[in-house]
Parts: sequence; structure tokens; C-alpha cells
Amino acid sequence: MDRRPIGVFDSGLGGLTAVRELARLMPEEELVYFGDTGRVPYGGRSRDILVKYARQDAALLRSFDVKAIVIACGTVSTTALGVLRAENDIPIFGVVEPAVHAALRATRNGRVGLIGTRASIRSGAYERLLAQGRPGVEVTARACPLLVPLVENGRFRPGDTVAETVAAEYLAPIREAGVDTLILGCTHYPLLREVIGRYMGPDTALVDVGAECARWTAAELDRAGLRTDRAQAGRHRFFVSDSTEDFASLASVFLREDVEGEVEQIDITAY
Amino acid sequence: MDRRPIGVFDSGLGGLTAVRELARLMPEEELVYFGDTGRVPYGGRSRDILVKYARQDAALLRSFDVKAIVIACGTVSTTALGVLRAENDIPIFGVVEPAVHAALRATRNGRVGLIGTRASIRSGAYERLLAQGRPGVEVTARACPLLVPLVENGRFRPGDTVAETVAAEYLAPIREAGVDTLILGCTHYPLLREVIGRYMGPDTALVDVGAECARWTAAELDRAGLRTDRAQAGRHRFFVSDSTEDFASLASVFLREDVEGEVEQIDITAY
Repeated sequence: MDRRPIGVFDSGLGGLTAVRELARLMPEEELVYFGDTGRVPYGGRSRDILVKYARQDAALLRSFDVKAIVIACGTVSTTALGVLRAENDIPIFGVVEPAVHAALRATRNGRVGLIGTRASIRSGAYERLLAQGRPGVEVTARACPLLVPLVENGRFRPGDTVAETVAAEYLAPIREAGVDTLILGCTHYPLLREVIGRYMGPDTALVDVGAECARWTAAELDRAGLRTDRAQAGRHRFFVSDSTEDFASLASVFLREDVEGEVEQIDITAY
Repeated sequence: MDRRPIGVFDSGLGGLTAVRELARLMPEEELVYFGDTGRVPYGGRSRDILVKYARQDAALLRSFDVKAIVIACGTVSTTALGVLRAENDIPIFGVVEPAVHAALRATRNGRVGLIGTRASIRSGAYERLLAQGRPGVEVTARACPLLVPLVENGRFRPGDTVAETVAAEYLAPIREAGVDTLILGCTHYPLLREVIGRYMGPDTALVDVGAECARWTAAELDRAGLRTDRAQAGRHRFFVSDSTEDFASLASVFLREDVEGEVEQIDITAY
């Protein structure tokens, strides 16, 4: 039993899609979320810079004495999970392993599509685990650098010509490869689920890495006896590295509900 | 006469379009360029964060004992020029004033279009100066948050469906307003000149804010007696806050020539 909060971070607000699922599965847990809105997006940055930013993000969360950290960011999960695990003595959960397990459960024809940021795709992290879990699996991977800017600018709804044009261009080779499962390898992408789903067709299973990671985290905390024994709803706190001004409106889009809980700006470079 | 270098900075590599013009006009001047590639893009960030980043960018350049600073960034020029001028005892040049002068020279019908980042448009900086210079001028302004991500991802060539779709959507109300002059209010946009020009038609004058700022800077340095008396070509040094790895290839796109001069990574948060 552990009453300390769970820490969650992302480059921006995409990680709130994981927060939503964490809160649904474990309403009594306290959550501390950090979105690095002063330095978003992460996906095009180099490994060294990503490791530096990830260390600061984790250090900020640890200043709240969290019992575990959820990396609700595809880019950091693929690039800095090992570093954070080596340097922290609490459980660190990333999105790759849960997503790969979900994809291997979902695929029938062994052809899996993967979309993510440039850094995520460059890492090869998903492909390695997919091949370990099912030798011979065929992975068609595509870096989609414009999807995070689209989502962070609220451009993700069906009927948005730009979102549909960009998505179609990225997804064309994946659809042509005949995949029956597509990993949405970035916590921003669930917002584009409808646009992506319409393009891929109803027979393609879409794997939401944030939601899978939340389920994985809940199961692991259960197994390790790290859940709280609190009965009432846990407090949710939100921190960002840029102004809190636009946070509430944008956050409610990601959470699909009004954000309840304090939002505060912090100086991430101090960590 | 002053042999010290000229400092130039931008959020990323867009400012190199100004460097190109500075080097053409003043080949004998030394240039020190900083591109904040570890925190690009600036255009969606809040005023407070932009001022903080701009101060660090200027402090880095001043560590090279520059004689003047060129803010080759529309977002910082519209948002933090006043702060930087108040805090520095060397000339600081932004892109707004030169661009407004060029636009007022170019327009015949008094209808001027303006595109820029969200922060630039929010500032109202161009509109204020345009109205001062020509009362009654009609300005149609549009924030174009996706253009910088497009350009930084190399998506700006005619025939690129995504670039053309995004540009057409942003520019439609500006073309409909019957402008005869369009300010490309961000140093990334000259890369999209052909896409934008084709959409707007041959009768619309396009104002390149980076190039105008470079011309303005050369004239002002002349007037102030701050030009070097060196006869040979000046040294060019480039600094970035993320990896130098991709710099050369991307930079050559912006400079339209091979980048000559050292490229070094620095920790901008130390300034």
C-alpha cells in the first residue's frame, strides 16, 4: 500500500489522454501531471536533448515524492526509458511495451502499422519488441512529424481538410501494406482517431498507446502492492512550463471533460 | 568603424534567410548566428516565455561581444523587441519596422495582407506601425501556426500537396480581401514563397521580412559608422541548442548554398 501520488509527464498535453484512462481505472489515486508546453514538441529533437529534457521532467515529478512515473510520451518512452529506469529507484512505465502487447493480441495477419514522431521511429523501439514477441511480424512504420503540431493546434476533427490530407499522406503506404493493426505511437494521436480510423477502414484495430500504458500501469501497481487504500477520489494536480492561460481549454479537449484540479506554471530548467 | 561581429538569432533555422541577405550585402562583416533548435518553434508560446527565451538568446550573442543584434525572428521581434532594446546598450534590429516600410512602399491600393505566427499576430505590432505609416490602411492578418512546422520539416516546395493545402486555407481570406501586398511575417516563410506566390497570383507583392531587416540593418550600421574596415570576407559562426547533426543539410536549404563556417551546440539555458 502506498498513498503517494503517481507522476505522469509528456512533452505537452497529449499525455492527458493517458491521465484520462488512469483516472478512470484508479479514481482514488493522486496524480501529478507535467506537460512541457514551453518546449513542446519533442518529436524532432535529438537523443541527447531528449534525455536531458526527460531527466528534468522526471526530477520535477520526483520533487512531489511520486511512487511511480508514467512516461505518457511516445518520444521519451522510445528514447529515454532506459536512462530514467537506471537513474530512478521507483517504477517507470513507458508506452512501448504495453502498446506492443496490445498490438500482438490484436493482429490476426501479423502485419502491424506504426506511426510516431521522427525520434520514436528512428529509435526502432517498437519494431524490436514486436519482433521479439512474434518473430516474423511485418511492421510498416512511418514518422509523422506534422501530426503533433496539428493536434496541439486543435486540428484533428473529421472534415478538417488539412488534418485529413496530412493523415492520408502518412497512412497511404501503411494501408497499402495490408496491416490489420495500427499502433498510434504518440499520445497526441488518439485525438485523430476518427480521421485515422476513417482512412484505415473499420477492419484495422487502432492501438492507443496512452490508454494501454494506463492499463499496464494500473495492473503493475496492483501486482506490486503499490495502490493507495484511500477511499475518496484522488487529487489531480497539473503543471506546465509555459503559461497556464490556454491550459484549461486545450486540456479539456484532451481529457474530454472539464479539467478539475490546480494548474501551475513551473520553471522546468530549474530541475 | 567597428570590427566586432553582428549577432543574429532566430527560434530555429528560418533566420538563416536573413543571414543570407546580410552576407550578400556586407560580405566583410563577421556574423554570429544562434538558432534555438532545442526549443523551436516559438510562435505558439506565451509572451513571458518568449521574453525569457529572447533574453537568453541575446545574452548568448553578447558573450561574443557583438556590435549589434538582428532579431531574425518575427515572433521575438513582435513580442520582445522593446525589452531587449531597454536592456542592451547596442543596436537591436527587429523585422517589423523594415517590413512595414517595405509594405507601404509596395502597396498601391492600401490593402495589405499579413501572415505570421500566433504570437506575432496576437501582438498587433505590424498593424500598429502600418496604421501609423499610412492611416486608413486595411490590414488582413492571419495566424498560420502550421507553416513553421511545415518549413522546419522541409515541406515547402510547389507540388507538395500538404504545403499547398495548408497555405491555401490560410491565404483564402487574404486573397479575397483584395490585398496587393502580403507581408511574410516570419523568417521561415520565404521558403514557401513559390507556393504562396502561386496562390496569391503575380500581382501581389510579397515582403520578405528577413531580407528587409538585413537591408535595414546594413543601412543603419552604415549611418552609425559601425561597419568594419576589414577587406576580406568575414567569418561566419553558427550555434544551435540541439544537435549539430542535421544542421548542415537543413541550413543549406535556408541559405541556398553550402554552409561555410563552424557549427557548435551550446546550452542556451546557461545564459
